[in-house]
Amino acid sequence: MNDLSLMRRLATAGQTKILLVVMDGVGGLPKTPGGPTELEAARTPNLDSLAARSICGMGTPVAPGITPGSGPGHLSLFGYDPLHYEIGRGVLEALGIGFDLQPDDLAARGNFCTLDSEGLITDRRAGRIPTEVGARLCEKLREVRLSGVETFVEPVKEYRFVLVLRGEGLCDGLTETDPQQVGKPPLPVEPLRPEAAPTAKLVNEWMAEARKILSDEHPANGCNLRGIAKDPGLPKMPAIYNLRCGAIATYPMYRGVAKLAGMEVLPTGETIEDEVKTLRQHWADFDFFFFHVKKTDSRGEDGDFEGKVAVIEHFDEVLPDILALEPDVVIITGDHSTPALWKSHSWHELPVLLWAKTIRPDGVTQFGERPCMAGGLGHIHNTDLMPLAMAYAGRLAKFGA
Amino acid sequence: MNDLSLMRRLATAGQTKILLVVMDGVGGLPKTPGGPTELEAARTPNLDSLAARSICGMGTPVAPGITPGSGPGHLSLFGYDPLHYEIGRGVLEALGIGFDLQPDDLAARGNFCTLDSEGLITDRRAGRIPTEVGARLCEKLREVRLSGVETFVEPVKEYRFVLVLRGEGLCDGLTETDPQQVGKPPLPVEPLRPEAAPTAKLVNEWMAEARKILSDEHPANGCNLRGIAKDPGLPKMPAIYNLRCGAIATYPMYRGVAKLAGMEVLPTGETIEDEVKTLRQHWADFDFFFFHVKKTDSRGEDGDFEGKVAVIEHFDEVLPDILALEPDVVIITGDHSTPALWKSHSWHELPVLLWAKTIRPDGVTQFGERPCMAGGLGHIHNTDLMPLAMAYAGRLAKFGA
Repeated sequence: MNDLSLMRRLATAGQTKILLVVMDGVGGLPKTPGGPTELEAARTPNLDSLAARSICGMGTPVAPGITPGSGPGHLSLFGYDPLHYEIGRGVLEALGIGFDLQPDDLAARGNFCTLDSEGLITDRRAGRIPTEVGARLCEKLREVRLSGVETFVEPVKEYRFVLVLRGEGLCDGLTETDPQQVGKPPLPVEPLRPEAAPTAKLVNEWMAEARKILSDEHPANGCNLRGIAKDPGLPKMPAIYNLRCGAIATYPMYRGVAKLAGMEVLPTGETIEDEVKTLRQHWADFDFFFFHVKKTDSRGEDGDFEGKVAVIEHFDEVLPDILALEPDVVIITGDHSTPALWKSHSWHELPVLLWAKTIRPDGVTQFGERPCMAGGLGHIHNTDLMPLAMAYAGRLAKFGA
Repeated sequence: MNDLSLMRRLATAGQTKILLVVMDGVGGLPKTPGGPTELEAARTPNLDSLAARSICGMGTPVAPGITPGSGPGHLSLFGYDPLHYEIGRGVLEALGIGFDLQPDDLAARGNFCTLDSEGLITDRRAGRIPTEVGARLCEKLREVRLSGVETFVEPVKEYRFVLVLRGEGLCDGLTETDPQQVGKPPLPVEPLRPEAAPTAKLVNEWMAEARKILSDEHPANGCNLRGIAKDPGLPKMPAIYNLRCGAIATYPMYRGVAKLAGMEVLPTGETIEDEVKTLRQHWADFDFFFFHVKKTDSRGEDGDFEGKVAVIEHFDEVLPDILALEPDVVIITGDHSTPALWKSHSWHELPVLLWAKTIRPDGVTQFGERPCMAGGLGHIHNTDLMPLAMAYAGRLAKFGA
């Protein structure tokens, strides 16, 4: 497991460039027993040729058997033990809609719900109201005023919204209001540590006002708050690794996680070609690039095996343009598996490819799950990828004499 | 990761013998992409034949991507987590010249430097003065007297020397004087904990006197002290493993590290044949032998690919004589990689071979990096080798009922 204090101690300056390509959810499963996974089914001459000059293996994002969310999946790739550094659900939800979260903001994931006449929850998702209804209700909730604190209420999708409180002295360490079952009322927020008590009081005031405002609505006549959290204040990658870090991603959540890790988020377009163009434009400006490919995960979530294959093949086509920039170290992997067969994230290990000039070749000639299982990197924890990248980039001093 | 308390708890007495052969810096890299490493290029019929009856794998000395110095590389093989047990640079430097360091001695690595008329460092290595000049300056520095403390100043090579203070109550936990850049003066030594304050005062007195003595020299008219440290007081291998441990090594540093780990260091000659003779002579006296082959690393540091190959082939020739002693467990590996291509230590994993009578064979028939990548031991941490050796030697009790 990557020891960040060791990285801080050994990281040296350099002229080399590290490129981390994350094909979101790239790991897959065969459609039929014994068949190829999405990555194995894809025609990827460029990835395969690179794999033949690389050292390959299988990576675990969190721990064996643990299915990661997008936050932990990416933190692990950036070298942070996701069991130690957690990003609260409220913060991730705010980042996911591109909300410009400030370091001292308190963010919560909100869910509209249905209450009966006794105030007990009868539907935790308010009948999955349409997104436009959710948006109208958020407008209403913006009327709630708290003394000394600015509030933001932003719709996400259907019954989901984000509440952000901004002001001095806000404290995280609060319980959730959602009792996680019907037949119970929303719970009051409790402080988990003494200094969070004033913030708990504020959030409970907001909940009381919100309930009044929603009381004449149906079915969304109540709401719950979950994952009430602040920016976790991660140690920043430039300070840990002595690298200027740039992030290229088309979706807000990944841009947000990169920002939490201290990367500079680069403006880019919506396609992989746009991202490659951004990479080229900023090549001189950074030592480390996080390059995110979203649609592998999207097609996996859709259960669209062929669609996921097509995204992988599309990435393979632009790979030569990326390699033409002559990075010193290239890592290509995913943040977690999203088998189309399952339409969801899974815990399965990720195929990993690590290329550098002075690699020990391992005989793997195809970038796919089965070949990577026999690769020379073996089975590694994803947090170890950054130290390996740093080593191959010639950016780590020797440990001990 | 090896848990020494578990070893203490489970280690049992026995009649079996364990032999750990460390080919220093044995891990390598191909001269040309896709070519063989030094070990793969070497003609090693005896090692290959043993590998075919062994279980093989790849070992990590410290952590992925971390290049170990000789101290951490060996501690790991002896079962000590090198991130937990660190040997200070001053201690290693003293051991490296064969200085008979006592448990309470305080040792520092010294560097002669050049100061300008304002006392600022203009060359941190004093123009790399010849070794004989360094020796003459050390003679002069022996004139420095400190009250209640004996001092030793020993030349190492060129601008490097060792300072040892011997006396009651000396304390480690001191900052270095080397500002690590030119244009600054040597820094005063500061105590990192209150009880180290008197020792810091003593070292600063030594520095002031040394500066006076060197003031009329050129270019070495100043000096710096680094890695001011004491014997780390490692738990000793005989107590951990219930083994009588003997060390056979031709170079002082490895003899010194073995001594820190509680081994008895055996007098030997300068060649591998001398070491084999020593092993034979003392075969009845110990349960565990650390057998060190230095020149694999030396030739790697020289960038001499063919020379490293020749050292490996030379070891292969004497291997039958070693095996004729009928050890119960044999481990053959290195403390780190020293690819001739790089002329320096590297972080690359080490090929490991473990032979015992009751091994599960794994199909590896050649002792080389690529075959070992696919070996049955998998990718292990080097601290796990001692527990495996203990187990195969029948010297570990069952854990739990």
